[in-house]
Amino acid sequence: MDLIDLRSDTVTKPTPEMREAMAGAEVGDDVYGEDPTVNRLEERSAEIVGKEAALFVPTGLMGNMIGLKVHTEHGQEVICDSRSHIQNYELSMLAWFSGCLTRAIPTSDGILDWASVQREYRPAGLHWASTGVIEVENTHNVGGGTVYPQARLDEICDGAHALGLPVHMDGARIFNAATALGTPVGAIAAKLDTVMFCLSKGLGAPVGSILVGPRKLIEKGRTYRKRLGGGMRQAGILAAAGLIALEKMPQRLGEDHANAQRLAQRLAKMPGIRIDPSSVQTNIVIFDVAATPYDAAAFSAKMKERGVLMSAFGPTLVRIVTHYDVPRAACETAAEKIEEMLKAA
Amino acid sequence: MDLIDLRSDTVTKPTPEMREAMAGAEVGDDVYGEDPTVNRLEERSAEIVGKEAALFVPTGLMGNMIGLKVHTEHGQEVICDSRSHIQNYELSMLAWFSGCLTRAIPTSDGILDWASVQREYRPAGLHWASTGVIEVENTHNVGGGTVYPQARLDEICDGAHALGLPVHMDGARIFNAATALGTPVGAIAAKLDTVMFCLSKGLGAPVGSILVGPRKLIEKGRTYRKRLGGGMRQAGILAAAGLIALEKMPQRLGEDHANAQRLAQRLAKMPGIRIDPSSVQTNIVIFDVAATPYDAAAFSAKMKERGVLMSAFGPTLVRIVTHYDVPRAACETAAEKIEEMLKAA
Amino acid sequence: MDLIDLRSDTVTKPTPEMREAMAGAEVGDDVYGEDPTVNRLEERSAEIVGKEAALFVPTGLMGNMIGLKVHTEHGQEVICDSRSHIQNYELSMLAWFSGCLTRAIPTSDGILDWASVQREYRPAGLHWASTGVIEVENTHNVGGGTVYPQARLDEICDGAHALGLPVHMDGARIFNAATALGTPVGAIAAKLDTVMFCLSKGLGAPVGSILVGPRKLIEKGRTYRKRLGGGMRQAGILAAAGLIALEKMPQRLGEDHANAQRLAQRLAKMPGIRIDPSSVQTNIVIFDVAATPYDAAAFSAKMKERGVLMSAFGPTLVRIVTHYDVPRAACETAAEKIEEMLKAA
Amino acid sequence: MDLIDLRSDTVTKPTPEMREAMAGAEVGDDVYGEDPTVNRLEERSAEIVGKEAALFVPTGLMGNMIGLKVHTEHGQEVICDSRSHIQNYELSMLAWFSGCLTRAIPTSDGILDWASVQREYRPAGLHWASTGVIEVENTHNVGGGTVYPQARLDEICDGAHALGLPVHMDGARIFNAATALGTPVGAIAAKLDTVMFCLSKGLGAPVGSILVGPRKLIEKGRTYRKRLGGGMRQAGILAAAGLIALEKMPQRLGEDHANAQRLAQRLAKMPGIRIDPSSVQTNIVIFDVAATPYDAAAFSAKMKERGVLMSAFGPTLVRIVTHYDVPRAACETAAEKIEEMLKAA
Repeated sequence: MDLIDLRSDTVTKPTPEMREAMAGAEVGDDVYGEDPTVNRLEERSAEIVGKEAALFVPTGLMGNMIGLKVHTEHGQEVICDSRSHIQNYELSMLAWFSGCLTRAIPTSDGILDWASVQREYRPAGLHWASTGVIEVENTHNVGGGTVYPQARLDEICDGAHALGLPVHMDGARIFNAATALGTPVGAIAAKLDTVMFCLSKGLGAPVGSILVGPRKLIEKGRTYRKRLGGGMRQAGILAAAGLIALEKMPQRLGEDHANAQRLAQRLAKMPGIRIDPSSVQTNIVIFDVAATPYDAAAFSAKMKERGVLMSAFGPTLVRIVTHYDVPRAACETAAEKIEEMLKAA
Repeated sequence: MDLIDLRSDTVTKPTPEMREAMAGAEVGDDVYGEDPTVNRLEERSAEIVGKEAALFVPTGLMGNMIGLKVHTEHGQEVICDSRSHIQNYELSMLAWFSGCLTRAIPTSDGILDWASVQREYRPAGLHWASTGVIEVENTHNVGGGTVYPQARLDEICDGAHALGLPVHMDGARIFNAATALGTPVGAIAAKLDTVMFCLSKGLGAPVGSILVGPRKLIEKGRTYRKRLGGGMRQAGILAAAGLIALEKMPQRLGEDHANAQRLAQRLAKMPGIRIDPSSVQTNIVIFDVAATPYDAAAFSAKMKERGVLMSAFGPTLVRIVTHYDVPRAACETAAEKIEEMLKAA
Repeated sequence: MDLIDLRSDTVTKPTPEMREAMAGAEVGDDVYGEDPTVNRLEERSAEIVGKEAALFVPTGLMGNMIGLKVHTEHGQEVICDSRSHIQNYELSMLAWFSGCLTRAIPTSDGILDWASVQREYRPAGLHWASTGVIEVENTHNVGGGTVYPQARLDEICDGAHALGLPVHMDGARIFNAATALGTPVGAIAAKLDTVMFCLSKGLGAPVGSILVGPRKLIEKGRTYRKRLGGGMRQAGILAAAGLIALEKMPQRLGEDHANAQRLAQRLAKMPGIRIDPSSVQTNIVIFDVAATPYDAAAFSAKMKERGVLMSAFGPTLVRIVTHYDVPRAACETAAEKIEEMLKAA
Repeated sequence: MDLIDLRSDTVTKPTPEMREAMAGAEVGDDVYGEDPTVNRLEERSAEIVGKEAALFVPTGLMGNMIGLKVHTEHGQEVICDSRSHIQNYELSMLAWFSGCLTRAIPTSDGILDWASVQREYRPAGLHWASTGVIEVENTHNVGGGTVYPQARLDEICDGAHALGLPVHMDGARIFNAATALGTPVGAIAAKLDTVMFCLSKGLGAPVGSILVGPRKLIEKGRTYRKRLGGGMRQAGILAAAGLIALEKMPQRLGEDHANAQRLAQRLAKMPGIRIDPSSVQTNIVIFDVAATPYDAAAFSAKMKERGVLMSAFGPTLVRIVTHYDVPRAACETAAEKIEEMLKAA
């Protein structure tokens, strides 16, 4: 029985085209800046997002850590939402590496607005830490793959810049946001100072993320990458797959979104499952199983027995993420297996 | 015109008795552990709070930083309320020194409860930071001098200990809490692992705070004190005043509380000022001036012209703190001057 | 004109066999521990070095940082030699991430001995930082590819362990050391607590290093790897090349050593160049150009014009590193070109 | 029997005049910048050393940590001598707080020269940490109270400034240096960027040190002082003693130096003790007891039995420090007791 793995889009495996590209990649020593494939990937990334420069990093976490460090000094604060990846899934490395605390804003869906950000802003002073940077996550993972309305994002950037504050986006899934909005990634990023996005996840590359921003900050970031242990040698192997991820995979994310919507609609009809399909904007589906006989952990375990993997995402919340390796038919099968499981309960 | 300084109880000046004690203090080199007055202060502090050992530190901030460091490792999390001193007024030093992020819980009055703490608890794991310690603040400054109901505090400690988690109290004003509850400080601290309390603030000493806890942690803390630059030499000078603060001043905190209550009641009757006197539990009075012609900054500035100092504590919130150097009569004068100012508006 | 790149063995490009292996690698999400190729590489690495467990990391720097962190606490010291990689080429990340200073011992060739290590040892105390770990580098890069005599290394380990101190080896080029000594890597590592070695450098893999040690420390290290941003997804792509590097490439390092010796002997005869060929133990050749018309930078620049790359390694020191991509014939060509250049001077 | 305490000049107790000043000190809340005595002490300190501004801190360690932090960024290096206080007695806090490693230069007497500093200088780059600041210690404690020849110090400053590098002096005992040189402290400090000096130690204040430098850096330093836990409240109590230490005590340091010289000369004649009196420049006397029947620890223990305290400063080195509380007669007594002890051996 083949597993249907809906735990995360991080599980996607490289496509045959990516494998071929990796096997034939032209490489050099990237620590010397001599890997032509990495250089091409960085140039194309900067171009697509519309910033001066880009930096290839092994993980999104490293991209976020560098992106936040270039904007801050030890002893400042980072404004973010309280369920952001940097607060919840980066193991307090923000504190450790940047010496900053978060000023975390509770939200219903992970999407901040300027009014609440402004309330948390602190200027320099002797008695409190000043704000160093505002961080937004788009799409927002724990919020359920939610997308920033562009006007709302732009208002945050305008407000921040008026106060002299930069804005960094954890855009691990920014291409999903662009797909949902029907705009280019560059339009989303227009007012942002720095953006991190992942080539793994929905774009399917095996390893790698990109940080884009002003050349001066990216060059500073290069020394932080070295310090964090991200100064890889013939990284062009990975960049070769990354280039395909970047150029060819965004176009197909709509399928993942349609699959997620389809799953949400089928789930909404199942007994005991609570989900509002209209809240599903991209490839992430979070549903509540409180009214089934199972909590989230038991629900996931039951489904694992039936060959469908999903993530317990809270006591009664289960998360499903659609991606390239689970086509429509497998999504339908997954839905059927959930139905069967619930019937058998 | 003598100023009536109600900005904070940190402005209290040493009493004549304290000055005399400092002038005559028996001292030694405390870095060698040879200052008899410091040693006596540490012993008495441990005794009064009911813990094994104590450490004299120059500030409450240092006491909190050491208290939290002895319980945590870099890369963990500290659960606290979102308006705690460690989150708001310690300039992100928790992140810088301990490498921990806060997991900050919003509350109405700064007082946590076990249910909300438990929701934020994280065990060790590969994908998130584990909880290292729970921090409570008693009385709670930004919450308005609020006091932990003892049962609520004990429940947090019991719950934490069942999970193997320690609890640290920022008890900068724990003697105010004890006064409000009518119990000894030791009763409040019974289930706590470590407590920091201030000899300055309401107790009137010029400089100094104390960290109490298990001997092993306090000894570890001694090396952190040295690293932070708190290993003072003939610190017995300060400890001599601290001993008087510790032994003689707690008894009189009831006066400050009565004065605060009196001020709250007078304020409640003034036009445009919003405050519920029943929420005033200790020596801190926070009131809303939104319905006066002034915002908090302008309100404070206007009162400064009239010789009464208070703190703008938010866009429309003003904070008053009663203390030893502002006796009842001066409090009445302050109230009159506020009335005058509002009339003149 | 094809460049002859003798700057470092880090410039080696993946072999055709490695490329094929990467193209066909079985992969999974290594953050979930599900990448079979990574798992196999880690198992084989542990087995070969003779330790319980292993961790795949993107760079040697990250491997060293994790290896030193698992042994230390913030505020301790690391004993190493004064020209070690961790002191000179890891951009003070040891201080930043581990909060430790080095206690750096000057040596002529980078090889420590127990007597000098012991002098720098500090037990726990209130007035100084205690020693957390001893770090040795084998082969030693700046020392000129020097190899630890096994007895000397074992004596350091025995002495350290008697004091309760662990020993970490930066074994970036440990396979070169093993080749020079004619012993298995496991024999070198027998008494070490943790070892980092590189799959890139002489072994030719494009990206990746390994940290080996006790299972408990390696598991702790896994959470540090995540924090540093080294938790890659389908890392099996890289691990596939790494497995070939590990299994097949060590056998051929003798060629690099012979080439280095040959170059040293030719260099020793050139006018103005100072080098003692008997000091060249592995694949690194450092020679002094003080008596030529050039300093090291000019010397390297001149040779670059002639298509031979080398590293200026000090005001008058030049470093050459032999490796897989520069076979004997190219080494002879390089030597000729140096001769030509000196004649033309 | 009264102890003769020659362990350190840190053991000095406040003079009656200092005690009186502390008892009567005019104080305010220094966190608000309102303590007039602290302000006066800071102004006078800046004036005397000849810099724009000054900051009162509880300890020399904190003054050094702030002084080095204002000049550096995380991930840089600090050039210092290998036996400096910041390397040996500040418990690696430089690494922890500033994220910098030292590049420690071995010297015979703790006194650096420009040639050796220049060799350790690193410009910004991708492969190494850049130099952030040069640190000098004057007088040098472990070096034996040695004094920087002014020309040598000025040459270091000139060389550093030409490279854009600042120089910080750990001038814990800079007044001893000034006394030895017969020049004002301001002349020593003329080319330095920041200087830390201690009011405790030879100047006799119970607690406190001062950091002086450019106003902009000192203001930045004020926020670091707060973070480190050095933002004390009515610190004027301590500052009052500090002012007397600053104004009246430097004049008498010559006595301590004469006493140290006298002790050195008597020691030089004792059997088994090795010391060159001409190397004793200030109030620190370090002598070798290798040729006596005792090692340093046993020697100190034996002398403690006879009522004379000194410090074991290495396996066979003993340190004596003369100060205000040990007048000439007591120094002679101490010498006699050493002679007696050696005779009894």
